Amino acid sequence: MRTKVVIIGSGPSGLLLGQLLTEGGIDNVIVDRVSKDYILGRVRAGVLEEGTVGLMDRAQAGARMHQEGLPHDGFSLAFDGRDHRIDLRQLTGGKRVMVYGQTELTRDLMEHRERSGAVTIYEAANVQPHDFDGHLPYVTFEKDGTAQRIDCDFIAGCDGFHGISRKSVPEKALKTFEKVYPFGWLGILADVPPVDHELIYANHPRGFALCSMRSTTRSRYYIQCAVSEKIEDWSDTRFWDELRRRLPSHHAEAMVTGPSFEKSIAPLRSFVAEPMRFGRLFLVGDAAHIVPPTGAKGLNLAASDVHYLFEGLREHYQDRSNAGIDAYSARALARVWKAVRFSWWMTTMLHRFPDTGDFDQRIQEAELDYLTHSVAAETALAENYVGLPY
Amino acid sequence: MRTKVVIIGSGPSGLLLGQLLTEGGIDNVIVDRVSKDYILGRVRAGVLEEGTVGLMDRAQAGARMHQEGLPHDGFSLAFDGRDHRIDLRQLTGGKRVMVYGQTELTRDLMEHRERSGAVTIYEAANVQPHDFDGHLPYVTFEKDGTAQRIDCDFIAGCDGFHGISRKSVPEKALKTFEKVYPFGWLGILADVPPVDHELIYANHPRGFALCSMRSTTRSRYYIQCAVSEKIEDWSDTRFWDELRRRLPSHHAEAMVTGPSFEKSIAPLRSFVAEPMRFGRLFLVGDAAHIVPPTGAKGLNLAASDVHYLFEGLREHYQDRSNAGIDAYSARALARVWKAVRFSWWMTTMLHRFPDTGDFDQRIQEAELDYLTHSVAAETALAENYVGLPY
Repeated sequence: MRTKVVIIGSGPSGLLLGQLLTEGGIDNVIVDRVSKDYILGRVRAGVLEEGTVGLMDRAQAGARMHQEGLPHDGFSLAFDGRDHRIDLRQLTGGKRVMVYGQTELTRDLMEHRERSGAVTIYEAANVQPHDFDGHLPYVTFEKDGTAQRIDCDFIAGCDGFHGISRKSVPEKALKTFEKVYPFGWLGILADVPPVDHELIYANHPRGFALCSMRSTTRSRYYIQCAVSEKIEDWSDTRFWDELRRRLPSHHAEAMVTGPSFEKSIAPLRSFVAEPMRFGRLFLVGDAAHIVPPTGAKGLNLAASDVHYLFEGLREHYQDRSNAGIDAYSARALARVWKAVRFSWWMTTMLHRFPDTGDFDQRIQEAELDYLTHSVAAETALAENYVGLPY
Repeated sequence: MRTKVVIIGSGPSGLLLGQLLTEGGIDNVIVDRVSKDYILGRVRAGVLEEGTVGLMDRAQAGARMHQEGLPHDGFSLAFDGRDHRIDLRQLTGGKRVMVYGQTELTRDLMEHRERSGAVTIYEAANVQPHDFDGHLPYVTFEKDGTAQRIDCDFIAGCDGFHGISRKSVPEKALKTFEKVYPFGWLGILADVPPVDHELIYANHPRGFALCSMRSTTRSRYYIQCAVSEKIEDWSDTRFWDELRRRLPSHHAEAMVTGPSFEKSIAPLRSFVAEPMRFGRLFLVGDAAHIVPPTGAKGLNLAASDVHYLFEGLREHYQDRSNAGIDAYSARALARVWKAVRFSWWMTTMLHRFPDTGDFDQRIQEAELDYLTHSVAAETALAENYVGLPY
């Protein structure tokens, strides 16, 4: 088999790139080691920047998102018993974010891809990119017990942090940067109406809490916890009690509780691998970088990588120019590092660190005090939250 | 002897408070353990916020400052071989700072005090505040071998970090916060024209550097160094060579060098003591808080303390209200912590920390990259640099 671009990974970044390429008339094949149902069973982020929304539209896959997604004009910072609203729309000259679950976005892209007739190969074993440092790269895998090979011009590694793409790069060609935070997020999904129509990020002496949502009837709540905590120790009752303790009283009292149908603990990590291009292999999204979920940058950063790579590939095929491809790594990384900084800063400002001394605790409080009394500082927060320009 | 307010310490904060009180018709006496010449021999900061300039005017001591001081509309951040100007005036709607040495400001206040006839007692040994938790406080000291006592209504502790005022407060009544930075500043004064008409804050892999000035013919230069460095190991030649290495080449080439007439190494520290009032004793300026010199907040923070305390005392005597006095500690500390946060942030962003890993180094670079590409972030920097409102 031969195609122009082999995309390894059928998560949102692989699917989004695939659909942009397909809409742009550039043949591509997606190969994933897991099944479609497995991918759709993953619970992930749910806050989209306008740039991500625009890419979904450009991929002709945005219809349901616009129908069912919830545009948000702001969010709250809750601390010291009070709420402070960040008015994203006013601070950024009209920008907003869209609350729409990653699972739904992935489903829309998958369905659109199926309708377009583009090929996706699920449950492909031993996927391996080859010869991407030369001019004739290819990808091998096994499907139903048969070894297969796809020759291509380029390989897009959209297969996440644990995927084979980054692992296929010689170790000495990669420089990696990592920070592991000394806590995790215990999260639940429950079919109860959200406590507020906007998100609430809470800094409390007992730890961070986040009130998020997937829809007007499905809530997503998180509390900061030790990484060593065990799910089985957290009954729904214990979770709700702890969540309410960390919120200003008017929210705690308004909270509607109910049985959770998903509960998990996620560690928090920042990770960046440089560069993001190795000959004809490009790393995209989580394959190259991970951010803590504070600020909801993970999926949006994958989308901006897709934007830069798609533009580079479009230029290559339509304009016969490699300028975009050659600039991919530098362009993507400049934006990646700003989002990594923002996610690190939001995480640092809103969580309680187990080893923080009195001075650093006061600095955190002074930062929240300053931030909520300065239009300039609020604007800096807002412009990062809605997404820096591509 | 009896007066209304005894001010311990004849540095700029004590003198400024004294002159505001004198101009307001409130009797005061300043007591200092050292001599006038000793005080005028200290080399200190030199960048004044507009609020500080305004207080000098209100104290009727601003004439020479306006004549000889250098108004600055901006400064440069130098990193990665380039300069980025922060246009203070444009970003803050017309605000600026004034470069005028603390020694000159102190001299102006001293001369004005002498002309006004207000009493200053220099070289007073064993200065000690008493009974400030009651209604009849007093201050004792020895002068020319004779024990003396001044009864008063209030005591203002303007005697710096090592002074007796804070030390006289029972330890259990104080909460202190401290951060010691793992480096110092090696600074020189030289009678050479400044390399640029504005200040240059440089972040370089070899460490921070600051090009400042006292006048158009006197330069103040600093380089980050290990606290363990010894002055005698730093010849002028070595200093100039190291400074030039840390600056963009156009500055390094334009640098005029010459013999230094002052050279010293200062450690960098953040410190805050809470509260700032104990009955009828008020802590002011360095007696209550220290900031690293990055961002030039030390003297300006002392001035804002003076502002709050003077307003409180004025209300007490003129309006028979203790509201301002009662609010002094909370009002002063709210502004102190914001300036402590700003100084900590400027220090963190511009210095190289010996134990910084690759991730944190990239975060620092991403912060500078973001800051110099965002009007909102630049505005936040600028509004702090010119001074948050009282």
